[in-house]
Amino acid sequence: MSDDQTTSAVVLAGGSGTRFWPLSREAYPKQLLKIFGNQTLIQATLSRISPLIPQDQIHIVTNPQQAEQIKLQLHPAPNFITEPLGRNTAAAIGLAAITLYKKNPNGIMVVLSADHFIRNENILLEQIRLGREIAAEGYLVTLGAKPTRPETAYGYIKTGAALPHFSGGHKVERFVEKPDREKALLYLQNEDFLWNTGMFVWKVSVILEEISRYMPTLAEGLKAISEGGGPIQDIYASLPSVSIDYGVLEKSAKLAVIPAAMGWEDVGSWNALDEILPKDEAGNIIIGNVVNVGSSNSVVYAHNRLVAVVGLTDIVVADTDDATLVCSKDAAQNVKQVVEILKTKKSEEHRIHKTVLRPWGSYTVLEEGVGYKIKRIMVHPKSRLSLQSHTKRSEHWVVVCGTALVTCGESLYKIGANQSTFVPMGVKHRLENETDEPLQIIETQCGAYLGEDDIARYADDFGRVAPATAG
Amino acid sequence: MSDDQTTSAVVLAGGSGTRFWPLSREAYPKQLLKIFGNQTLIQATLSRISPLIPQDQIHIVTNPQQAEQIKLQLHPAPNFITEPLGRNTAAAIGLAAITLYKKNPNGIMVVLSADHFIRNENILLEQIRLGREIAAEGYLVTLGAKPTRPETAYGYIKTGAALPHFSGGHKVERFVEKPDREKALLYLQNEDFLWNTGMFVWKVSVILEEISRYMPTLAEGLKAISEGGGPIQDIYASLPSVSIDYGVLEKSAKLAVIPAAMGWEDVGSWNALDEILPKDEAGNIIIGNVVNVGSSNSVVYAHNRLVAVVGLTDIVVADTDDATLVCSKDAAQNVKQVVEILKTKKSEEHRIHKTVLRPWGSYTVLEEGVGYKIKRIMVHPKSRLSLQSHTKRSEHWVVVCGTALVTCGESLYKIGANQSTFVPMGVKHRLENETDEPLQIIETQCGAYLGEDDIARYADDFGRVAPATAG
Repeated sequence: MSDDQTTSAVVLAGGSGTRFWPLSREAYPKQLLKIFGNQTLIQATLSRISPLIPQDQIHIVTNPQQAEQIKLQLHPAPNFITEPLGRNTAAAIGLAAITLYKKNPNGIMVVLSADHFIRNENILLEQIRLGREIAAEGYLVTLGAKPTRPETAYGYIKTGAALPHFSGGHKVERFVEKPDREKALLYLQNEDFLWNTGMFVWKVSVILEEISRYMPTLAEGLKAISEGGGPIQDIYASLPSVSIDYGVLEKSAKLAVIPAAMGWEDVGSWNALDEILPKDEAGNIIIGNVVNVGSSNSVVYAHNRLVAVVGLTDIVVADTDDATLVCSKDAAQNVKQVVEILKTKKSEEHRIHKTVLRPWGSYTVLEEGVGYKIKRIMVHPKSRLSLQSHTKRSEHWVVVCGTALVTCGESLYKIGANQSTFVPMGVKHRLENETDEPLQIIETQCGAYLGEDDIARYADDFGRVAPATAG
Repeated sequence: MSDDQTTSAVVLAGGSGTRFWPLSREAYPKQLLKIFGNQTLIQATLSRISPLIPQDQIHIVTNPQQAEQIKLQLHPAPNFITEPLGRNTAAAIGLAAITLYKKNPNGIMVVLSADHFIRNENILLEQIRLGREIAAEGYLVTLGAKPTRPETAYGYIKTGAALPHFSGGHKVERFVEKPDREKALLYLQNEDFLWNTGMFVWKVSVILEEISRYMPTLAEGLKAISEGGGPIQDIYASLPSVSIDYGVLEKSAKLAVIPAAMGWEDVGSWNALDEILPKDEAGNIIIGNVVNVGSSNSVVYAHNRLVAVVGLTDIVVADTDDATLVCSKDAAQNVKQVVEILKTKKSEEHRIHKTVLRPWGSYTVLEEGVGYKIKRIMVHPKSRLSLQSHTKRSEHWVVVCGTALVTCGESLYKIGANQSTFVPMGVKHRLENETDEPLQIIETQCGAYLGEDDIARYADDFGRVAPATAG
């Protein structure tokens, strides 16, 4: 492979966190969660392809807010291609393609999702290697997973004739919508049907050509963005919001597919855990602080609080600090409706967790009542919050672990465990952890208004100057 | 009715709070809960019989701990007959009978349970009036409810011949164990079968005679208690633990039963709510902060936290601050197994709620971590905690509402909202609310040991001097 055909990975990470609620939230979608082990889904995605694609060739397409959270998880930070808002996969892939094209018009891009599970990672790598060879010949290569069950939640691809020069590659006969159970059973028995994984390999130039051919409006918008022809926010908002499958692939004559048994799963809903995590003898997946009396084939995901399940069959229970989901497995796809309802009710439980991560550490709202709010605040070693003040609240701090360096007005002093201090309303203050150990404080805020937006920042290690986010 | 046949009510309130977990706890069983409206079950029980039996003739049989909680709910406080430990209904009724016999050997007692629901309270009162007449003739009268469905969770009574002199009264042919579904269907079609409500009317002297006849060991124990023949704790522990039905009624020749359609339900498990509370068009009972997408015939009982249910059928979800139950309706009787498991695991979630009621107010543990514990403390107007000290913790108090009068060592001072104070380890202190408004403080405890038993009391308005309970 010649140098100018450098392979880049484009990881789509724009998930909205609706179907894995309440574990995922709008501000903290599932790719940021450790669902299967020690790594979050996005960490696993990157480490999985690291044998093939160097870190500096990895590009993550996401929104600015999620980019902040992803940076906390990935070291060194990869490249980010930030979308001002979500416009489905055609726009996201197009934006990535024009970005990569500028760097190298002959490059190859591998499109991956941040929320897939792949059991046999070596087979994926083999597929990508083969895909690269086929893509170099001008094909749009999709990766197809051999079905292992009559899944109705996935789209399918029907393979056509074998490619002439590549053992393992096929033409694509057609894309198939998510089938009903009956059709899915037929597809399972027919070798020609593969699950459409949404992973692709192609030359940057070829996908851009095909976008121009089948989605001229998108192509024009991308050109305008590329040439700086207006605010990206406005241009991006005007792009068509369709999937790359529907907008381009289903129409293109350049399609190829590589079938493989890589143990792929889209972690698209709570049901997906069934295919991935180990089960007890009654078919349950039980994680956390759970008491089970006679349940079967159920998924119980507890966190700190106690969850007791009695006599359940085919039920998903997911508990978090501020919200609990109980869902029939049959209806797991409808969890997103819960999120929609919460949005219309202007609740917060669809948007954020009780614990909010910050570059300096994290805070957890323990309770909010009339006139007060209690937070547990954790500050990483050698980190500090911004120098800030509030117009409508004062704060009482009790150190429960570690040592705090406190700036309060003109004073600078240290307080340790079992010591407290008071930050009056309007006074400039800063909380800092100079030590090598974590610092934990309990903050009791008092005031008539306790919103996170009551903050003026005067200095910050993380470049935050707008009155937008707490700490 | 002559004066010496005064009617007393004996309310059995010794429930262990296992089948309504997590709403009920060992220290806070279901009779103390507002399950159906503005009154707790025990409040409803007493107000229901108030037209017939004066407050000073009501006797509640319970353990000392629950008596404390019940006193907080009933004003004026009724009479208490405290059992040192639970020994089933024969012992509880026997203890009540000897207590009443001393006051009036010719009296009549009505035995009620603190955890029943009765829709048609007037019919109950009519039954009790009739029961009193029949009991005056020497019968042991049980109240029978006409079945409205093939219930398998209740015991039945088969009626015999009509009593000669009392319209509405019958002899009892036999007691019937909880039936299977098939038998329950037969019973429903046969007018002779009634639900055994566990409510009774009899002369105190007659039940004591029958106890002597059929349970001589119990009779001896009761005599020893009555005559002060040893520590009640020891005697009571040695009493047989059987139900009055099994120990006496099933054997007695003096039985009578009064059938009536009073809309009676034993609030014995979560399923009972189905028979009592109104349902939505899909058959759900939904209470609290709940989002429902497509569930049917389910019971969802939420508290503060958000509970989302999706596509459930015949499921009970009960959420509290520290624990969540999800249970198939079929298995509602097995909830008590959860409590057993928690006991063996030495968890606390079967025993207490996060919010613990005290005579002076209440406290809620908001969080407990290594070296610290955070409580929200509410002090009633004109109330105060004991003068106390702790050997292993200090306390930081922030007033968030109201005004606190603080004793700390030799100092006495007031702090208001947004003010704080510090109580060092070992220092005698007291928290008092002199005002007419509630006082709320946030307490952050710091120390190596934070158990509620680290307390020495020097003065207390509620007669608590032992180092047993917090505050």
